[in-house]
Amino acid sequence: MKRIVLALGGNALGQTPQEQIHLVKKTAKSIVDLVEEGYEIVVGHGNGPQIGMINLAMDFASAHGAKTPYMPFPECGAMSQGYIGYHLQQAIQFELKSRNMKRQAVSVITQVVVDKEDKAFQSPVKPIGMFYTKQEADRMEKEQGFVFTEDAGRGYRRVVASPNPVSIVELPVIQQLVDLKNIVITVGGGGIPVIETDTGYQGIAAVIDKDKSSAKLAEDLNADMLIILTAVERVCIHYKKENQQELEEMTVSQAKAYIEQGHFAPGSMLPKVEACLSFIEHTKNGTAVITSLDCAKEALFGKTGTKIMRD
Amino acid sequence: MKRIVLALGGNALGQTPQEQIHLVKKTAKSIVDLVEEGYEIVVGHGNGPQIGMINLAMDFASAHGAKTPYMPFPECGAMSQGYIGYHLQQAIQFELKSRNMKRQAVSVITQVVVDKEDKAFQSPVKPIGMFYTKQEADRMEKEQGFVFTEDAGRGYRRVVASPNPVSIVELPVIQQLVDLKNIVITVGGGGIPVIETDTGYQGIAAVIDKDKSSAKLAEDLNADMLIILTAVERVCIHYKKENQQELEEMTVSQAKAYIEQGHFAPGSMLPKVEACLSFIEHTKNGTAVITSLDCAKEALFGKTGTKIMRD
Repeated sequence: MKRIVLALGGNALGQTPQEQIHLVKKTAKSIVDLVEEGYEIVVGHGNGPQIGMINLAMDFASAHGAKTPYMPFPECGAMSQGYIGYHLQQAIQFELKSRNMKRQAVSVITQVVVDKEDKAFQSPVKPIGMFYTKQEADRMEKEQGFVFTEDAGRGYRRVVASPNPVSIVELPVIQQLVDLKNIVITVGGGGIPVIETDTGYQGIAAVIDKDKSSAKLAEDLNADMLIILTAVERVCIHYKKENQQELEEMTVSQAKAYIEQGHFAPGSMLPKVEACLSFIEHTKNGTAVITSLDCAKEALFGKTGTKIMRD
Repeated sequence: MKRIVLALGGNALGQTPQEQIHLVKKTAKSIVDLVEEGYEIVVGHGNGPQIGMINLAMDFASAHGAKTPYMPFPECGAMSQGYIGYHLQQAIQFELKSRNMKRQAVSVITQVVVDKEDKAFQSPVKPIGMFYTKQEADRMEKEQGFVFTEDAGRGYRRVVASPNPVSIVELPVIQQLVDLKNIVITVGGGGIPVIETDTGYQGIAAVIDKDKSSAKLAEDLNADMLIILTAVERVCIHYKKENQQELEEMTVSQAKAYIEQGHFAPGSMLPKVEACLSFIEHTKNGTAVITSLDCAKEALFGKTGTKIMRD
């Protein structure tokens, strides 16, 4: 049975709980469509808006007299995995049941190890949590060692690093569950970032790119295919220009050339293409596809999406 | 290999994230002590302070201008499972590694089905979230159908029901993971309460007693023993009176007599004893023990704790 790691983007989840519980129904249909075609499916997903919301609410409540404790960022990530995983597995369970399929869906709380020497830690760029005044930011920099940047006149916001995933702590369990044909939801938000210490894993305030973690997962699980779902049906060169061109496929060396030519926006299509390259280069026969949620099934059969493959 | 379901109480987790990450280290030691003795261990746990904190922070932030959305109670429960599971599995993983044990620890987001006709829904009693004024409470009763009670002069607080667990949605997966000798953390906070509808499971604002859910889990997994960990080493009759007496053991009919005589406080020792009785009466050879975290290992060998068994 062929194995696919599916990386869900923000548009598969939405912003509020109402929106999310609605959107995951459609997401679940697309996922179970692939299961129905006879594939083993592993689901990775983002958590940008969700961890942002949780972190902001926890920060705000503790700073404004709700008497709730300050909540560290990795713990907010763990919460977001619970919150998103719950909705996703519930929707997938229903979709499976309504098609009389005996498979199970399950969310696994997942830590991903990062290297504390990762050079990303030298230049944190991901803004998280709420806006503070300069005075508040200065105090927190001093007292807690946080890093802040001024955000377009709206105040000061904490920034964290985006290091690369090194290894997935719960991999052995994920492997077992996938081998038993369960639909596993994992590496939520790229995984809870942890570093290795003498006293075990320790959470660290950082954001791991979810496409990179999904690529690592696909590599570790020896998947046949990595599908990265995003807002567009196909990757484009000359994106949003007059000569915009949708790509049906690209080889590794073509992709590298496009990257060099600056076709893919950092923080947007670039990390997705890079994640696909990383997966292909670390596996023997893997291919990768970038497409939209709606087109996932068609892309599987090569009818749409952008396929990335060996030269 | 003998199988034990361990139900952790609030004192195994603490109130703040700092306290929790500290306390779970000790909790993990006690758990891995049992694993080292050759048992399969499944861990259920409470979430009272944690879901309270999350729900309060989310309520507060959305009500006081943080621009975060209102977060329904079942979603707060899912968050608390992620948050607590993350700390627990991290601590257990370290404890396993430092003893050179190859087993894995994993947290599974878990839904527990309740009956929407459960009579507990007619008289909600568990206070959750923040305090509101009478006016705010009246408006929310009208608009959202919430139920409020006045809380000792401190304002109005939402109350939810505490229905009985009917079935554990993720049981097949939990069963697989336990069969493969993983240490599974599940039914956190008694599980996310859901009801069955034509469109699948649907979260409902309620609190399922975690000891009852752990007992149901022990029954479903055909466990040999249910261990309920609490603040005291042994169950007492005439508790905190002059003639207080610690119990080494009690049979089902003795326990029922003690219950009738009012020895066990509702919301405290009573649900624990009832959970043990339910487990014993639903299995062929199961025994149950109530003891403290520190005494778990000794209780396993019958050296302390209160053992509850068939007549």
